[in-house]
Amino acid sequence: MTIRLGLVGVGKIAHDQHIPTIAASPDFELVATASRHGSVEGTPSYPSIEAMLDGPETIDAITLCQPPHVRYDAARLAIASGKHVFLEKPPGMTLGEVAALAEQAADAGVSLFASWHSRYGAAIEDTRAWLAATTIHSVKAIWKEDVRVWHPGQEWLWEAGALGVFDPGINALSVLTAILPRRFFLLDATLEFPENRAAPIAADLTYVDTAGVPVAAEFDFRQPGPHTWEVHAETAAGTMLLAKGGNELWIDGVLKTTAPEAEYRGLYDQFAKLIAAGKSDADTTPLAHVTDAFLRGVRKPVEPFHY
Amino acid sequence: MTIRLGLVGVGKIAHDQHIPTIAASPDFELVATASRHGSVEGTPSYPSIEAMLDGPETIDAITLCQPPHVRYDAARLAIASGKHVFLEKPPGMTLGEVAALAEQAADAGVSLFASWHSRYGAAIEDTRAWLAATTIHSVKAIWKEDVRVWHPGQEWLWEAGALGVFDPGINALSVLTAILPRRFFLLDATLEFPENRAAPIAADLTYVDTAGVPVAAEFDFRQPGPHTWEVHAETAAGTMLLAKGGNELWIDGVLKTTAPEAEYRGLYDQFAKLIAAGKSDADTTPLAHVTDAFLRGVRKPVEPFHY
Repeated sequence: MTIRLGLVGVGKIAHDQHIPTIAASPDFELVATASRHGSVEGTPSYPSIEAMLDGPETIDAITLCQPPHVRYDAARLAIASGKHVFLEKPPGMTLGEVAALAEQAADAGVSLFASWHSRYGAAIEDTRAWLAATTIHSVKAIWKEDVRVWHPGQEWLWEAGALGVFDPGINALSVLTAILPRRFFLLDATLEFPENRAAPIAADLTYVDTAGVPVAAEFDFRQPGPHTWEVHAETAAGTMLLAKGGNELWIDGVLKTTAPEAEYRGLYDQFAKLIAAGKSDADTTPLAHVTDAFLRGVRKPVEPFHY
Repeated sequence: MTIRLGLVGVGKIAHDQHIPTIAASPDFELVATASRHGSVEGTPSYPSIEAMLDGPETIDAITLCQPPHVRYDAARLAIASGKHVFLEKPPGMTLGEVAALAEQAADAGVSLFASWHSRYGAAIEDTRAWLAATTIHSVKAIWKEDVRVWHPGQEWLWEAGALGVFDPGINALSVLTAILPRRFFLLDATLEFPENRAAPIAADLTYVDTAGVPVAAEFDFRQPGPHTWEVHAETAAGTMLLAKGGNELWIDGVLKTTAPEAEYRGLYDQFAKLIAAGKSDADTTPLAHVTDAFLRGVRKPVEPFHY
């Protein structure tokens, strides 16, 4: 049976990923949107989630892809209306918000899906299996991009309590927690804060896993030109590179990936499975790593950032 | 059967609470200690946990009450040696550390107990039941004390990544998460950092619960004279005061508690039960609230602090 979907927040990520993926999905049908500015041609659109819920369309599930600071209130409303909820990443502003939503979803008997799109990269599962079969000597994630290209004018990213460079960085953490065979935890962190901003523009993170393997991560919003979304590992079986945010696996310089990129198709397949099974998936491990970095990290002031 | 216990970190909290409680417990026998400086008369003492594990005493379980920055390594060793582990609060420096220990304890088949002593206050259970039976209008926790009295010379409290005033404040959060009927999450936070310190000396926290009830918390290390460890609530059934860190329940000015204070007896009873049941209790909700505060909190510089 087709799941009738409402989409909240018709911005860049909705147009780039959600709308084409939903259109191509055998499981979902887009029946309404809610957004202050955006809409989808041929689909009823509302100015708010409240108006969408009051509309005549029957809605089974709702995807939320507005910025995270308004996500909790929308998710609470959707859950209270008995809808299944798909949360873009990050699933909330705090761990407390997500725990509160998970509790409400369980009480209401609906599925809550905290999506981590990078975990659905074409090479993630092969990489996980490949690393599990060898001895890892060291791991390093490098997530660097030009914030002006990827987050043009997104002032909310820089407000107090926002993630700054951890907004893409949390993708790296969602990948590391998916592919590594053991848990890792933070030893040291330096977070670079522009003097005029309340969120970090770069981060240097030193972790170790429970077997003593060093795991590092470098995030930077100031990289001009092409972006870098890569995990490098030195192992007993050779040098591994997981490139393009989880979509290409290279071993000793040879490309091993055969599947095409289809992250959001994977996410919507998973959401449909969760709804069918009556389950939730609200894993907050990547967000917990971010909050740990804010707790432990030394803050270094750097030059102001302006769009 | 008596559980043979090793105690690591023979400092203030060990002498004040653990050692007399273990001596009075029917479940535990103190068979060794490990500490750089402290010891217990009549009990074999070692300079380190490694030396204690190499000693001739048979040890079933280990309590760790050193400062949190050395807790992970000690816990890892204890778990790898097949010992059940009791962690003083906070259970680690980060959420990542505690998740890593929980995974290792599960793999090793030993019990891990993240202790929150304030949850074993004499009035906690009565308070929880009383609040569950009424309508709560507002809640406020006030945890204020003189750091010079309660943490004399403890420089580790002020290092980068340490909890500062959240070291007592996490007791308040462990109480709130135990007595309130619903989850709450952070809306706003101000953390006051002395100009010469890397950890906060005071915090002002604004939460809301999932029913919209306001929950506030104020922590301060600069209170001279008597300390304040209190939760106040306005409710449909009257004004509640949970005083003395969870040990006295007052309703409309009338004392309702009848049980004597016995927090650490409660903790050791729980540890014995977990061991007997082959279970762990590594709840990190109070620590997650602390990391959320470091993520969202606005940092305000205040005058330097010196012991």
